[in-house]
Amino acid sequence: MRPVAEHAAVVAALLGPTGTESVALADARGRVLAADLTSPVALPPFANSAMDGYAVRAADLVGTPVTLPVVEDVPAGRVDGPPLAPGTVHRIMTGAPLPEGADAVVQVEWTDGGLPGATVTIERAVGSGQSVRTAGDDVVAGQVVLTAGTVLGAAQIGLAAAVGAPELSVHRRPRVLVLSTGSELVAPGEPLRHGQIHESNGPMLAAAVDDAGGVSRLLRFVPDDVGEFLTTLDAALAEPTDLVVTSGGVSAGAYEVVKDAFSRRGIEFTKVAMQPGMPQGAGRYRADGATGDPGADVAVVTLPGNPVSSLVSFEVFVRPALRRAAGHPEPDRPRVRARVSEDLHSPAGRRQFRRGRLDAVTGTVAPVGGAGSHLLAALAQADCLLVVPAEVTEVAAGSDVEVWLLDTP
Amino acid sequence: MRPVAEHAAVVAALLGPTGTESVALADARGRVLAADLTSPVALPPFANSAMDGYAVRAADLVGTPVTLPVVEDVPAGRVDGPPLAPGTVHRIMTGAPLPEGADAVVQVEWTDGGLPGATVTIERAVGSGQSVRTAGDDVVAGQVVLTAGTVLGAAQIGLAAAVGAPELSVHRRPRVLVLSTGSELVAPGEPLRHGQIHESNGPMLAAAVDDAGGVSRLLRFVPDDVGEFLTTLDAALAEPTDLVVTSGGVSAGAYEVVKDAFSRRGIEFTKVAMQPGMPQGAGRYRADGATGDPGADVAVVTLPGNPVSSLVSFEVFVRPALRRAAGHPEPDRPRVRARVSEDLHSPAGRRQFRRGRLDAVTGTVAPVGGAGSHLLAALAQADCLLVVPAEVTEVAAGSDVEVWLLDTP
Repeated sequence: MRPVAEHAAVVAALLGPTGTESVALADARGRVLAADLTSPVALPPFANSAMDGYAVRAADLVGTPVTLPVVEDVPAGRVDGPPLAPGTVHRIMTGAPLPEGADAVVQVEWTDGGLPGATVTIERAVGSGQSVRTAGDDVVAGQVVLTAGTVLGAAQIGLAAAVGAPELSVHRRPRVLVLSTGSELVAPGEPLRHGQIHESNGPMLAAAVDDAGGVSRLLRFVPDDVGEFLTTLDAALAEPTDLVVTSGGVSAGAYEVVKDAFSRRGIEFTKVAMQPGMPQGAGRYRADGATGDPGADVAVVTLPGNPVSSLVSFEVFVRPALRRAAGHPEPDRPRVRARVSEDLHSPAGRRQFRRGRLDAVTGTVAPVGGAGSHLLAALAQADCLLVVPAEVTEVAAGSDVEVWLLDTP
Repeated sequence: MRPVAEHAAVVAALLGPTGTESVALADARGRVLAADLTSPVALPPFANSAMDGYAVRAADLVGTPVTLPVVEDVPAGRVDGPPLAPGTVHRIMTGAPLPEGADAVVQVEWTDGGLPGATVTIERAVGSGQSVRTAGDDVVAGQVVLTAGTVLGAAQIGLAAAVGAPELSVHRRPRVLVLSTGSELVAPGEPLRHGQIHESNGPMLAAAVDDAGGVSRLLRFVPDDVGEFLTTLDAALAEPTDLVVTSGGVSAGAYEVVKDAFSRRGIEFTKVAMQPGMPQGAGRYRADGATGDPGADVAVVTLPGNPVSSLVSFEVFVRPALRRAAGHPEPDRPRVRARVSEDLHSPAGRRQFRRGRLDAVTGTVAPVGGAGSHLLAALAQADCLLVVPAEVTEVAAGSDVEVWLLDTP
């Protein structure tokens, strides 16, 4: 059986970098910056007042209280820059440019609040530079303010706006077509006959794709007939697609449409040394008559059909590959070690992924549900995966295990 | 000055629960479930095979190898349920319903793979129940599978689909109008004159709203004239809005449009004992002639204009209020304690929020940038806030401080 790390490398190699695109700041949240952002301006661009008060020459305030004429009114946004003559002050507001000739600001609370055209009495002397933000205090012109690979949140978007960038170069999101197959599947909301189940892998994997930073497109109930399967797939691939993710149809059974359709068309099917998720496939498929790009082939990853196997395999193989392709600096889930609360049993030679809940305060992790790959309710309660190495078959309660932290939004 | 906790309670009280709405599974990612989800069905709904192989009566396998006739072929999705007669087997695929009369499955690897209509030779005996998933093993009918307040990710969406729910009742996202004012502001991409800066709070706060689970709408460059400000605002409020967030225009200066427009119109302006972010305002505003709902008033929170003050205030007051209103089980950022890497100085009587980077491995946190509220570049490097309590003015390097973890996507 193929080691987990080897199959992960095969999947990762299928997906090259997605390329870059320019997005407006309003659309940049959550995207990954593709190039260093250099500021063409200093921040602040000019010396300005940190307070509402009076722009002064500090030397004029010797022997306070002093009373001085208030010559000009300088609100934020005043652009004509009236200079300050010795022995006078200008009223100034927070963020307004410090007048030429001034070297400090006295906050209004230390004055009698005199108006422009009259005088102000100042109670306290200030040192040169007091309540002044110097130009370039935050950022100097030419400085790299955000490096390639930065994930853009509110603060980063604010900074980009502040340095004057109306749009940003980001990595393009991988476009992922999620296929579900299986003649036992019925849409949620439809009644079940004996032998049928509701299709759940499609919406689950589409959400997982979006959560990983991809753009999912979902094609449900693709026919189980190989010819019809390929026709449906080829038609869907007329739309540009970076990756096809299927679930089901890959085990040892007699009716395995994914395996039958892809096995002589570029996809390698293999057993991976893990539990759950042993039957895996990956490769590149060239659609017949695809109109998206006739010369192109598309990456395909086939996941097993049991919901838990499917989502765990996605976590192990697909999510990191998608994030790496999209330039994400940390493709993997955060990993920690924690003490497991009960004994674990794992098959020899297979890396086991159990669903768990981590108590970060005590550093303990409890498995939820059993090892069964059909236990979806337990998966929905989990906030982490517990990892038992392939060579380990028994883990005693209280031992340290590796834990992968899933999202806890 | 008003304590931080008191102002936080005032802001939280402004925003009631947003109500609920029904969304399709495809739109449910990241939403908060508004009602317990009860499964009308068992999972699995019927006993089924965990393997590809042969459905058998375990009692028929005494004295293996045994050769038995393969009567029927039961793929997944076969709904007519052919029963199993003693002394015979059916070929069966993973997920297919276990035939009446069968009590175990022999996996194909332990057989010669005989076809339906012929015979199969089985090498190993199995116990009753082997490779069978019993009905209700995962979920019993009537079980609450997801509780109200659950944040919906891939696994939860998969489970909802599996129990047959095509849509889910979720909390409605708060609709937030973000306003920016200030005559010194210029759009990113436009050239700056001396005294002007690029507007950054609007896109920053809009991203912060969306990140908190709200739906932002951005109105930039609202006029500084009180009459025009109110006219613009009232027109915007024709669209249903749960909260208006402004930045700037609230300090002690002479030209403070937000304060001037709102101070006799339901909004209370106050000084909060914090650094940065002292000037705050909150209340309910009734738009004149708003067409959205003529009898309704709208919650308003006014944030200070310095970008760092603005985003820190948003984190402290607005984000938790938005998440609470949207039913989020954990409105606050995760909080931990860490050793600070350098001395901190904080003004007496004000809770200080410094920007920092946490090293989770060593449990140390380093401040980034100074305390200045204009240091946006440092804010964009931060992954946490350090909190110095109001009564503390000096924190020695190596001391424990409270740390709020910001997103590290």
